[in-house]
Amino acid sequence: MKINIISVGTLSKEFQVIFDDYIKKINFYSNVNLIKIKEFKSNNKDLIIKNETMAILEKIPKNSKVFLCSLNAEQYSSEKFALFLQEDNISFVIGGSHGVDEKMFKGAWKINFSKMTFPHQLFHLMLIEQIYRGFSILNNKIYHK
Amino acid sequence: MKINIISVGTLSKEFQVIFDDYIKKINFYSNVNLIKIKEFKSNNKDLIIKNETMAILEKIPKNSKVFLCSLNAEQYSSEKFALFLQEDNISFVIGGSHGVDEKMFKGAWKINFSKMTFPHQLFHLMLIEQIYRGFSILNNKIYHK
Repeated sequence: MKINIISVGTLSKEFQVIFDDYIKKINFYSNVNLIKIKEFKSNNKDLIIKNETMAILEKIPKNSKVFLCSLNAEQYSSEKFALFLQEDNISFVIGGSHGVDEKMFKGAWKINFSKMTFPHQLFHLMLIEQIYRGFSILNNKIYHK
Repeated sequence: MKINIISVGTLSKEFQVIFDDYIKKINFYSNVNLIKIKEFKSNNKDLIIKNETMAILEKIPKNSKVFLCSLNAEQYSSEKFALFLQEDNISFVIGGSHGVDEKMFKGAWKINFSKMTFPHQLFHLMLIEQIYRGFSILNNKIYHK
């Protein structure tokens, strides 16, 4: 069981501490590998999206089931999200601040977390927490809300 | 302009640091007052809900417009959420892990952030970030995603 999180941009020390704490807890169930992509600098938004999308695609391991965190997708309850974690080899993709070229991710599942827009760093915590919650649900662990 | 966040339970040091950082940024637009209610200890879930609900109600300032963060409510985009912040005196209520007795909050607006369940501490960050984002939207500030 292996989970990759492929994302554009960095985490500040304060967010990294909380993120790493969840990773440690999840390690009991699965390895989590955070693959960071450097933000592409340009004044041309389309060029940023194109380059960051290509950089992400290169990092997706072969035979990995891809989940794209998207503003234009269905929402799932934590219980339904947990079921996705039964796949053997998963890659979650978090785009940069301009998003990704979604049509390049053929066969990917899309997931939306909220109608609201959340910043990159906070979204990392939301995703990693749901992964931890998901494993707790699958393993019938009581997990305090 | 004054915003109260009335919530049950505590924040760990790691979460408090990030929360306080948002408070500092919001101070430019509004005072934010975090009012913490102690968790009520009991094996009786109904008793916990009843006592925590009463403790919250006592802390809501007079004439404050109440927004109840609820699992059973409508979701709003960040742009629509921002419009709520135009009220002069607002209280956001975050219940404990068993929730609150919602029917006791007569006249309150209810807001849902996600179909997913998030833990208490992380939800504090999600709420305070949306408040900051909301003021940035109302004041036409560019705010990096």
